[in-house]
Amino acid sequence: MAPDRSVERAIEGLVRALEAAWNRHDAHGLVEPFAQDAEFTNVFGMAVRGRAAIEALHAPLFKTMFTDSHLTVTETRVRMIRSDVAAVDVKWTMTGARDPHGNPWPERAGLLNWIVTRHGERWLIDVSHNMDLPSPDLAKAQAELSKR
Amino acid sequence: MAPDRSVERAIEGLVRALEAAWNRHDAHGLVEPFAQDAEFTNVFGMAVRGRAAIEALHAPLFKTMFTDSHLTVTETRVRMIRSDVAAVDVKWTMTGARDPHGNPWPERAGLLNWIVTRHGERWLIDVSHNMDLPSPDLAKAQAELSKR
Repeated sequence: MAPDRSVERAIEGLVRALEAAWNRHDAHGLVEPFAQDAEFTNVFGMAVRGRAAIEALHAPLFKTMFTDSHLTVTETRVRMIRSDVAAVDVKWTMTGARDPHGNPWPERAGLLNWIVTRHGERWLIDVSHNMDLPSPDLAKAQAELSKR
Repeated sequence: MAPDRSVERAIEGLVRALEAAWNRHDAHGLVEPFAQDAEFTNVFGMAVRGRAAIEALHAPLFKTMFTDSHLTVTETRVRMIRSDVAAVDVKWTMTGARDPHGNPWPERAGLLNWIVTRHGERWLIDVSHNMDLPSPDLAKAQAELSKR
């Protein structure tokens, strides 16, 4: 089921708010698009629950790994699960990050996937998983295998 | 919201069916737990839609990369989004895989995340994303940063 325009706009608003907060390195702003009780699983598989915990997870990272990082959302795709429940895929790229050991982590690409639901008048993220995408050449090699 | 026992059992059934089909390297069995119109995004970020497409994606891989692979589900976590919509996290490990270039890909660990909904009497997977988890030492280094 495709989303109607008002849902599409609401979800686009969440995406843009998250992107802008990331690029301000603002952990408090980053949790604005999340529901109070939201769950966030990062690319390392670490899961935390609740806005405060999501903020606390990111605040120190914006002073270390991600202090020079810039996030760009390249694609948003929405699929309606119910009239008030949407599955959202958000593809992103990132420059300027460092890995947890402090080494440059250049030209990252990844995929956020969300469950977004209506909370009264607002749409908010209830569940978010983030994943790094492997190098394009590995993905291409796998695609070749699938065609055999 | 925690799932009730009947939902928990239904979802556990989907997990076990998928694990067993994987370990038979049976692409047709693998799509049994999925809804007809389900979407599957693999660890390379490749997304396909529909049972037939999910089967077609995996069938050649079970003859190549995954022909000697063994999947073990280590943890299933369910969160109810609506009474008929569940978010499910499935942690797994895998031995015996090869990467798309044919190199051994030992001791993989990963996380499937699903949106599972009620379809009449059955619960089925509507949306599935799979991700590889990076090495535990990278996750640990990131956890240390978050504690600062």
